[in-house]
Amino acid sequence: MRFSIVGCGALGTILGAHLLGAGHEVNVRVRGMRLKQIETNGLCVNGLRQFSGLGCGSLTINMPVKEDILVYAVKTYHFEQAFSDVGSSNPLAVFSLANGVEKTRLLKNRYSESSVLGCMANFSGELGSDGVANFTRNVAVYIGGSSVHVRSIVETINSAGINTISSDKIETEEWSKFVGWVALLVTSVIARADTGATLANPYLAQIAATIIYESSLIALKQGVTLIDRAPFPVATISSVSLADATRAVTKIGEDFIREAPGHRMSAVQDLAFGRELEVEETLGFLCKEAVSFGLDCPCLQMSYNIVSGVNHIQKSLKN
Amino acid sequence: MRFSIVGCGALGTILGAHLLGAGHEVNVRVRGMRLKQIETNGLCVNGLRQFSGLGCGSLTINMPVKEDILVYAVKTYHFEQAFSDVGSSNPLAVFSLANGVEKTRLLKNRYSESSVLGCMANFSGELGSDGVANFTRNVAVYIGGSSVHVRSIVETINSAGINTISSDKIETEEWSKFVGWVALLVTSVIARADTGATLANPYLAQIAATIIYESSLIALKQGVTLIDRAPFPVATISSVSLADATRAVTKIGEDFIREAPGHRMSAVQDLAFGRELEVEETLGFLCKEAVSFGLDCPCLQMSYNIVSGVNHIQKSLKN
Repeated sequence: MRFSIVGCGALGTILGAHLLGAGHEVNVRVRGMRLKQIETNGLCVNGLRQFSGLGCGSLTINMPVKEDILVYAVKTYHFEQAFSDVGSSNPLAVFSLANGVEKTRLLKNRYSESSVLGCMANFSGELGSDGVANFTRNVAVYIGGSSVHVRSIVETINSAGINTISSDKIETEEWSKFVGWVALLVTSVIARADTGATLANPYLAQIAATIIYESSLIALKQGVTLIDRAPFPVATISSVSLADATRAVTKIGEDFIREAPGHRMSAVQDLAFGRELEVEETLGFLCKEAVSFGLDCPCLQMSYNIVSGVNHIQKSLKN
Repeated sequence: MRFSIVGCGALGTILGAHLLGAGHEVNVRVRGMRLKQIETNGLCVNGLRQFSGLGCGSLTINMPVKEDILVYAVKTYHFEQAFSDVGSSNPLAVFSLANGVEKTRLLKNRYSESSVLGCMANFSGELGSDGVANFTRNVAVYIGGSSVHVRSIVETINSAGINTISSDKIETEEWSKFVGWVALLVTSVIARADTGATLANPYLAQIAATIIYESSLIALKQGVTLIDRAPFPVATISSVSLADATRAVTKIGEDFIREAPGHRMSAVQDLAFGRELEVEETLGFLCKEAVSFGLDCPCLQMSYNIVSGVNHIQKSLKN
């Protein structure tokens, strides 16, 4: 089974290094500085597991995508560019590690619907300026479907060391992750601090709890009933009182402080490096949905303005 | 006329230096590092006007407060400490340069009601680590009342170079400044950028416009009808559509970029130096008032959580 991975930020690098380490063929599609780093050093990972160089598999760089498992490990706002770079291809399966619930719809516009798999990637890392990805959390990658084909992909990635599970309710998984992710995005952009310190703070925890509640209303209108998944039990958080929901979020923060000290959301890393944040495809999407369903979601609307505002100021400071 | 100024941050230093420059007696009440700086260098100002050293008046340090004009130039959360430092005194008049609308009530609890004057200080500066205050904006200090006594104080400060005006509707002036100040506080804490860049950003301008609108509802319940005052025409902003209000705020941002480039809110300076922000006396006060009047102010409630959250995380990082 050959994997083509588009983009080698933290997640693409961690996935590719594990697959190479397990002896698979990996073709990375990369550009710019990252291309030079990978040509020189291969895919390097430290943290939960260590990989340096090439593993025992075969690494190719920027080869055409053939009948591969094609993985988009770029942010959704880079999809158009990435589609154009990859060019025409006929992958066996294609899925994306990106955040949000819009990515699968975008993939289905580009590839045959039967080849597109839903995916909810709940693992984390941070790419250092030296090109080494620090692997910090290995919770689970959920891939949609229950066919032999899907189970074989899942088994391959899981055996390589990234916890991976097939799911026949992938939309529920995606939404349940997404809602917690948005809450963490907003509070992290406000605090610009570690995940633990951010969520353990009762004022910011209350904002996170409110975002989860408002998002759950939108999910419900979409026909999705949220479920509890680590690290955010969003079904519980959105169904209890605001005070209890806030306490539940502060507890998650305390867990992060203990179990993943120093964990920072990728958005905080992006802000520190002057990189663009994913706003339109995440908070922008939720706000549009809220308006179209006639839902009053003041916390989400203000959150959209906060993250967009910080994003634009950041970009203008960089230029 | 002798002035006793409690606290020599940016505003206390700028006021004291102007009064000394005009030949008045100034007694400053200071502590810690600032005490040593003033003992060595006097009250130094650059920016809109330059003062170095002592001027032609007479500067005393930490002398008892006699029948002076007593000016509290410390934040409201330092009032208790400052009251205790100043000790028993019987000033001719007392007012405060602090933000918010709570300060006058606090002064009236401490001093005879007839000696307490309302004040709305709309001038700005930034105290450098070298103890020099950079004087950036000289809009107007409003002092409440129209008696001969008040007009004489106003004339003295105005002649010294700080634009000063007496007002017989000081509560309206205080609220009208306060409401714009809160909008700037929240957006500045979110953006952590210059005032101009913050307000010119349409996403953050919309947040500022919403805060001004919600605060105007609370002012109205207090019996205060806002008026337009530089830099925030809050009466206009709170009475037009959100789109028009947002445009009005972005225009203020563009004015700041042009006329006061580099201006940063004191809260942004405080965050950069790990100092405590004024939250309870400002946003906390508004949120409590909203609840007691049964007003729905979601943007103010979320703003309170944002500023409190950032404040607490900042303090914990410092410790």
